[in-house]
Amino acid sequence: MAFSHKIFKKIENIVGKSNCLNKKEDILCYSYDTTPDVYYPDAVVFPQNPQEVSSVLKLANQNGFSVTPRGAGSGMTGGSLPVKGGVVMAMTRLNRIIDIDRDNLVAVAEPGVVTGDFHKAVETHGLFYPPDPSSSDFSTLGGNAAECAGGPKAVKYGVTRDYVLGMEVVLATGEIVKTGVQTAKGVVGYDLTRLIVGSEGTLGIITQLILRLLPLPDMVQTITVIYDEIETAAETVSEIIRQGIIPRSIEYMDNASIRCAEDYMKAGLPTDADAILIIEVDGTENEVSHAVERVTSVCRKSGAREIKTAENRQDAEILWKARKSVSPSLFKYGPDKINEDIVVPRSRIPDMVKKIKILSRETGLTMVSFGHAGDGNIHFNIMLDKKVPAQLHKANQAVDEIFDFTLALGGTISGEHGVGITKSAYMTKEISAESVALMRRIKSAFDPAGILNPGKMLV
Amino acid sequence: MAFSHKIFKKIENIVGKSNCLNKKEDILCYSYDTTPDVYYPDAVVFPQNPQEVSSVLKLANQNGFSVTPRGAGSGMTGGSLPVKGGVVMAMTRLNRIIDIDRDNLVAVAEPGVVTGDFHKAVETHGLFYPPDPSSSDFSTLGGNAAECAGGPKAVKYGVTRDYVLGMEVVLATGEIVKTGVQTAKGVVGYDLTRLIVGSEGTLGIITQLILRLLPLPDMVQTITVIYDEIETAAETVSEIIRQGIIPRSIEYMDNASIRCAEDYMKAGLPTDADAILIIEVDGTENEVSHAVERVTSVCRKSGAREIKTAENRQDAEILWKARKSVSPSLFKYGPDKINEDIVVPRSRIPDMVKKIKILSRETGLTMVSFGHAGDGNIHFNIMLDKKVPAQLHKANQAVDEIFDFTLALGGTISGEHGVGITKSAYMTKEISAESVALMRRIKSAFDPAGILNPGKMLV
Repeated sequence: MAFSHKIFKKIENIVGKSNCLNKKEDILCYSYDTTPDVYYPDAVVFPQNPQEVSSVLKLANQNGFSVTPRGAGSGMTGGSLPVKGGVVMAMTRLNRIIDIDRDNLVAVAEPGVVTGDFHKAVETHGLFYPPDPSSSDFSTLGGNAAECAGGPKAVKYGVTRDYVLGMEVVLATGEIVKTGVQTAKGVVGYDLTRLIVGSEGTLGIITQLILRLLPLPDMVQTITVIYDEIETAAETVSEIIRQGIIPRSIEYMDNASIRCAEDYMKAGLPTDADAILIIEVDGTENEVSHAVERVTSVCRKSGAREIKTAENRQDAEILWKARKSVSPSLFKYGPDKINEDIVVPRSRIPDMVKKIKILSRETGLTMVSFGHAGDGNIHFNIMLDKKVPAQLHKANQAVDEIFDFTLALGGTISGEHGVGITKSAYMTKEISAESVALMRRIKSAFDPAGILNPGKMLV
Repeated sequence: MAFSHKIFKKIENIVGKSNCLNKKEDILCYSYDTTPDVYYPDAVVFPQNPQEVSSVLKLANQNGFSVTPRGAGSGMTGGSLPVKGGVVMAMTRLNRIIDIDRDNLVAVAEPGVVTGDFHKAVETHGLFYPPDPSSSDFSTLGGNAAECAGGPKAVKYGVTRDYVLGMEVVLATGEIVKTGVQTAKGVVGYDLTRLIVGSEGTLGIITQLILRLLPLPDMVQTITVIYDEIETAAETVSEIIRQGIIPRSIEYMDNASIRCAEDYMKAGLPTDADAILIIEVDGTENEVSHAVERVTSVCRKSGAREIKTAENRQDAEILWKARKSVSPSLFKYGPDKINEDIVVPRSRIPDMVKKIKILSRETGLTMVSFGHAGDGNIHFNIMLDKKVPAQLHKANQAVDEIFDFTLALGGTISGEHGVGITKSAYMTKEISAESVALMRRIKSAFDPAGILNPGKMLV
C-alpha cells in the first residue's frame, strides 16, 4: 500500500483541503458504478484545472499510488472503480462550457459537463451534439469520451469518437498536452485524440474537449412499429437499410423489455407484442415526411402488426424515457443481472435473437434484449440470483456462449460499454495475443509506472 | 548500408523472382512521388499476401534495412519515398475487392485497389464511399488510409478515418494483426485502427481494409457561384454553414486557379472572376431542390455576381475535372511550386485570403490558392524557380509566415496531405515537444528497430 496520510496531506496542499476526501462515509459514493462491484479508494480528489491534475499525477508517479479518473460513475463495466485503491480523481468541478462557435460548428467544454446539459446548451444555438447514451441526464462528456459512448442516434450520426476533434489531456507522467485540432480536418502527427477516446481512462486524464457540432435538424419524427414475432422485427431492420434509408435511430425492445418499461413509465406500450421497433427520422419537414413514408412502407410490407407515428414531441419524449428506463428497471425479473452490449452485423440480428431464445429455454433464466438494432448493437441481459450457484454458473456459461456466437457472426463483444473490469477476462476472445501485446506497449509508452486506472482492460 | 545482394536473393525467395526489382532502370519509377524529391530504393518488392509482407519485414528487422510501403506514389509530402534506401514495398498486387455487403454497408478490400475503381464498384450496388482525394483516379485505398486522405466531400461526409472500421495490418516486427471491427460500432481495446490511419506508413503495413459505406444519394446538384471579390466568396462559406446548411462540397478557386483550369480544360470557367465557389448538394430530389434554393439565396444575398446550376451530370463532371486539374496544371506559373494544405476555422478563411494577397504582393511571387473551403482547408501554392536563390528564400519565408498565421488563427498545417518529408521540419510549430516525445514512444512500441518508413514525420 503506497498511500499514506503524508501523501494525503500533499494532495491537500495541491487542491486545497475542501477538495479532497478520505473519510469512509465521504468516499463511499466514489466506490461504485452501475456494476455490482465496490472498491474503496484511499482518497477522492476534485481538481479544478489541468495543473492540479498534473501535480497529483506527478505525486502518484513518485509514490506509486494509483489514480482512477471518474466522471459521473455511471459506467457499465467498472471503468471508474479504483480497483487498486489510491486516488479517485473526480472531474466534476471541471464543468464549464467554454465556447460554442456556431460559425465553425465547434464547442470547447470541460470533461465534467453533463452530456444532457451540453445538449441543451448547444440546442439553444440551433446546434446539435448527437452522442446520446441512455445515461445522458447524468453522465459526463469526459466519461463519454473515455468510454466512446454511443446511444440511439449512432445509426446515422456515429459515436462519441466521431465528434471529438481535439483534447487537452494530462498524461500519466504529468505533462499537459493538446491533441488534435479545432478545425474540421487535421492530419499532423499520430492521431492521439482517437487513441485516447475509448481508452477508458488508462492513457491520460482529459481536461478539455474540442467537440464537433452539427446544425440542429428542423424536425424529428418518431415511429413505433409493433410486431407479433421478434424475428420479423429483426429482419425489418436490415430491410430498411437495404432500401437505402438511414434513420437516425432504429431501436428495438423485446417483450420482456416492453413489459418492464411499461410497468415503470405507463407510456402505452403494447405489453402483448413480441417486439417493437422505435424508428426516428430527422431533417427538414420534406425530408422527414418522405422518410416516414418510406419507413412505414417497408415496415408494413415486412409484416408489422401496427405502426404508430408520435403525435407530438411530448409523446416521443415519453417513449424515449420508457426506452431509456429499460436497463435500470430490469431488476423486477431478478435481484441480479449480467449485462452485455454485443454488436453483430445488422443482417445477423435475426440469428442472435434466435440464439438468445434457445439459451433462455436451455438455462431456464430470464434473458432480456433491447438496444440499438440499427447498429446491430444488442443490450443483452441475463437476470438471476447470484447467490444461487447453479444460476450463476449457467449465466456465466451463457455469456461465454453468446460472446463466441457474436464473434462467429463477425461481431464484437462491446459496442459502447467498454471492457473495464467486467469484460477484461473475455478480451482475448476478440483481440489476438499479438494485438494485446502491442496495446500493452502503447500503455507503457503513456504510463510507464502503470499508475493510471490499473486493473482495467489489459489485465 | 545494410542492403546486399544476399538480402535481395532472400527477398526473391520470399516473393518470387518476378516480383522484385533492383535494376536502376526498373526502380526509377519507385523513386519519386508528386514532390520534387527523388530517392532510389535498393529494391522494389511486390508482395501478394500478408505472409510475404511479414517475411520481408522480419528479414528487415534481422538485417536492419528500411521498408517503405507505397500505393500509387501520388502523395504530396514524400510519404512513399525511400529516404534511407532499402526496400520499397509496392502494394499494387494486393488489389482485390473481396466483399461488398449491401445489407451491412461494409466492404472489404485490399490496399492496392484504386480508389476511383472502388467508387465505381460500390456504386453499381447503389452504395457510396465518400473519401475522394483529387488523385482518386490513380491513388489507392491503402495510400489514402495511410495519409487519411480527404477530398471535396469531407464537409458533409468526413475523411478516410471516418470510413475505416478495421484493418489487417502487418506490424513492423512481422506480426499479422486484425484491428477494429466489421460492425458499425466497437470499443474493445485501444483504437489501433484510427492510430494507424494517418500514420503515413510508419506504424505498420496495411494488407486489408474494412470500409464503411453509405447508400448512394438519389441525386447530386452542382452550383457554380462567381464572385468579383475573393473576400466575398470567403465570407459566403461561413454564411452558408451559419444558416444550418451542410452541402457535401464547398470548393473555392481563386483567379489564378480558374485561369489555370480553364486553360487546361475549357470548362467555360469565368477567367475574369476573382474567385468562384463550387457548391454541391445531394440527397433525394426534394432535399436537393430545397438545398439548391437555400444555397442560392444565401449566395445571392452575400454578393455573388452570378450563380449557375449545372444542367446535367456531364457538365458537373467537366467542372470537377477542371477543379481537380488545378494542382497539376499550376506549373504554367513557374517551373517549381511549394504546395501546402493548411486548414483554418472556416470563419477565418477571409483573414487567410487577405494574408495571402499581402504576402504575394510583398514577395513578388505568384501565389495560388484553391481547395476545400467548406472545411477551411486551403491548398496554398507558391510558384517559383528554385534555381533562383532569392525566390527560394522568399518562398520559404512566406511558408513560415503562413504556417505561423494558420496556427495563430487556430488552424493546422496539414488537413490531408500529411507531414512526410516536406512538413517534418515544421511539425514542432504545431505539436509540442511533450507530444512529439509521446509519438516517438508510440513509434518505438510499434517499430523498435525503426525499419518502417524512416525519415518521415518524426525525424
